[in-house]
Amino acid sequence: MGKKEQNKPQRVKPQLLKGFRDYPPDQQAAREKMIARIQQAVELMGFQPLQTASVEAADVLLGSHYSSDSLAELFGFKGPDDADMALRYEFTLSLARYVASQPDLPLPFRRYQYGNVWRVDKPGPGRFREFMQFDIDIVGTRNMLADAEIIAAMVGTMEHLGIERFKVRYSSRKILNGLIEWAGIPPQRGPDVMRVLDKLQRIGLDNVLAELSGGRSDDSGDRIEGLYLEDNWVLRVKEFMIQNVVGTGRSLVGSHDYLQSSPSCREGFDEILQIESHLSHMGVTSDHAEVDLTIVRGLGYYTGTVFETTLLDLPEFGSMFSGGRYDNLVERFQSQSVPGVGSSLGVDRLLAALIELKKISLPRCTSKVLVTVMDRDRLPDYLAILKELRAAGIASEIFSGDTKNLTRQIRYADKLGVPLAIIAGTNEFDAGLIRIKNLAAGASKAEGTSDREDWLKAEGFQEDIPRGQLVSRIRQLLSLE
Amino acid sequence: MGKKEQNKPQRVKPQLLKGFRDYPPDQQAAREKMIARIQQAVELMGFQPLQTASVEAADVLLGSHYSSDSLAELFGFKGPDDADMALRYEFTLSLARYVASQPDLPLPFRRYQYGNVWRVDKPGPGRFREFMQFDIDIVGTRNMLADAEIIAAMVGTMEHLGIERFKVRYSSRKILNGLIEWAGIPPQRGPDVMRVLDKLQRIGLDNVLAELSGGRSDDSGDRIEGLYLEDNWVLRVKEFMIQNVVGTGRSLVGSHDYLQSSPSCREGFDEILQIESHLSHMGVTSDHAEVDLTIVRGLGYYTGTVFETTLLDLPEFGSMFSGGRYDNLVERFQSQSVPGVGSSLGVDRLLAALIELKKISLPRCTSKVLVTVMDRDRLPDYLAILKELRAAGIASEIFSGDTKNLTRQIRYADKLGVPLAIIAGTNEFDAGLIRIKNLAAGASKAEGTSDREDWLKAEGFQEDIPRGQLVSRIRQLLSLE
Repeated sequence: MGKKEQNKPQRVKPQLLKGFRDYPPDQQAAREKMIARIQQAVELMGFQPLQTASVEAADVLLGSHYSSDSLAELFGFKGPDDADMALRYEFTLSLARYVASQPDLPLPFRRYQYGNVWRVDKPGPGRFREFMQFDIDIVGTRNMLADAEIIAAMVGTMEHLGIERFKVRYSSRKILNGLIEWAGIPPQRGPDVMRVLDKLQRIGLDNVLAELSGGRSDDSGDRIEGLYLEDNWVLRVKEFMIQNVVGTGRSLVGSHDYLQSSPSCREGFDEILQIESHLSHMGVTSDHAEVDLTIVRGLGYYTGTVFETTLLDLPEFGSMFSGGRYDNLVERFQSQSVPGVGSSLGVDRLLAALIELKKISLPRCTSKVLVTVMDRDRLPDYLAILKELRAAGIASEIFSGDTKNLTRQIRYADKLGVPLAIIAGTNEFDAGLIRIKNLAAGASKAEGTSDREDWLKAEGFQEDIPRGQLVSRIRQLLSLE
Repeated sequence: MGKKEQNKPQRVKPQLLKGFRDYPPDQQAAREKMIARIQQAVELMGFQPLQTASVEAADVLLGSHYSSDSLAELFGFKGPDDADMALRYEFTLSLARYVASQPDLPLPFRRYQYGNVWRVDKPGPGRFREFMQFDIDIVGTRNMLADAEIIAAMVGTMEHLGIERFKVRYSSRKILNGLIEWAGIPPQRGPDVMRVLDKLQRIGLDNVLAELSGGRSDDSGDRIEGLYLEDNWVLRVKEFMIQNVVGTGRSLVGSHDYLQSSPSCREGFDEILQIESHLSHMGVTSDHAEVDLTIVRGLGYYTGTVFETTLLDLPEFGSMFSGGRYDNLVERFQSQSVPGVGSSLGVDRLLAALIELKKISLPRCTSKVLVTVMDRDRLPDYLAILKELRAAGIASEIFSGDTKNLTRQIRYADKLGVPLAIIAGTNEFDAGLIRIKNLAAGASKAEGTSDREDWLKAEGFQEDIPRGQLVSRIRQLLSLE
């Protein structure tokens, strides 16, 4: 390597880390619009915004006896002052910390929080290491009214986003805990059984039963080890699963003896019936919220109600908005228990679904008008136009690039998606006229043809109007768009 | 320690990390309101939203030859896949990465970005390790129109926030670079001299001159070492500083021979005059934007225009919105240079200032109405009321706590700041009436007296109205608030 080569500054690759992403303007604008609508929906129900720190002490997220291995499973690190810390991977633990640190907080505390969370999971299509969640929770009550309010808020949010075909399915952990007992499965096998049952929606009943018994092969031929439960245990699970598991409380209680068979089941089912009654009085119909006894939900801290939300037209997108009741979570921080219930919405996944369902469209750029600069001597005139448009509330920009070439300025506006451009030179100014080029109209005309470059330069789709009519004509053209 | 003691779960302290904070609902709501107004102001000027990843590869933030020490000066760590990474400490480097990775991006690119940044600085009053910034930038142009647009956007933002008394002061790095030359100071001393000149606003001219010479003692008596510049160099700096340094280009060019003395100065001053002319045609007056030749700005990557913003009634809050032109930043990522100019607003600092100036007030809670639950058998009726209020767009909640005690429910509403409560029992329902308790009116009456608890229980500030008039009466009461 020659000397010259060595002295060249070494370039950095302009790359994102694996699992991270940027949101270009159109996506970010759509995301903000969606978030604002979710906020409207939950604020109507009295939820208040909270924002907590993005970085938490390791023990807040992992409990007091965490290992360095478990810290490495988060975005964990030794920060300033040699303290173990990590990026939050969800909001509920931070909420529990907040509630424990605020003894004067009026309870129940209804709050929403949205923002990024970070997880070390292997990235893949649609799976990121940084993603946005929108959580709603009611903390400080065991009252099933709170559970019903959370479900009603989930339903209200989906409706406010313009989604009609969706279903919130809910159950209680206590019911499946009862199943373990009823099937004769030893309690210590419970967590493993739950983990398998949680796959029901994804892999179907036959595969679930196979995983409870001797195992199976997945689509790629890989072996998935089974739990090797005794046959009569698995039969009991099957017996439960092939009866009605989805419907109204009334329809389910008829088909499931076992719902009354253990105290845990009875308690869970009684809670579900209360929620169902509250929801019906709030006007939430079974079209949008229904009992489904097979719901598990992964998180270890759920103690009662659990729920998830599926888009009926996009079931393959998985659950959009899910959560449950956690009555012991604040106990990590204080002896006094503070029960709570909440749900978490995956903002990016839902946005992708809304775009797929054409319920939201990626917006054009922010500017409605580009003022081109044909003649630098006329800058005072161009800037006066710009000032007038902005004073009228019309989002506008002046071409602030380095080129004087008009075609390149028009091409900039076209590429960006600015619908209108203003072009004026000495002739126009002297005649008291302004030229407006309607790029939006030209673009839709040229759609799919090869003459886009031609009309950019051509005289079509433009009109000269008296200078004094500028704002009113532009308003008119924008409203026609 | 006894066995019992050992088995007790060990509690985690519900603590924030040093330098981190939570935003309770009232502050978060005020912050969001402020951010929305800033977005309105900059979108009117064609700025588009961008969101980049919070975590960046270490070399993106630090350049290719970073050391582990410099990584430790950020929130840096070894993440998954053994990659060096860090939380971003500003947005401009991420913007440069984004622009370098998008060869088809229409330029100039006007974007805004807001979000958290993280710095390891020692925390103190008003100094946090996680805080929010709002940046505006125009990338891909050397045209001084872009610099003028950034300053106009800063002015427009402050005005849109209702602030009248503020000043954006701007200059060019090239002018102070010229001063070094003009004063005869060797170029390699330049960065040290700039660092001292940057303190002018905070410590005054005499102290600056002392630090350029033999040093000084600060207020606490601590010794601050001087740069020991030669006396005639310091005299030249003084000669510059005691002439007019703030004003219009015209006023300054008359008093400063040296502005024409070197190519660097001439170029910088010519740029400043262009910006001043553009601003005047855009209607930005010298009340709000003025040349100040002493502006330095700390960041190493500025190459031309620099600017900062002071609130005239709160100068002690420091600069609110500041930045400059960086023509070489994207060169970290590619050989082709992409010049840019931008400014960064400290969201939390400005919010504190707006609250201090009473330009923004912390809002009450989200709910306007609490529906109390006096009689559980009447839940269907309470839920019907709730449904009706929400359908009318009135943010409401039902008391979803565990207590049946009405006084405690009313106290909850009072503490939270809910203005109205609905109270109804069998008597009211049978008579077709609804009772509305006006907590907001009661609270302002009880302000500063000891009988708050009394009126909560008392019969005052409440009225019975026909059930059918519920929504209209509540609307009326809320509008009177």
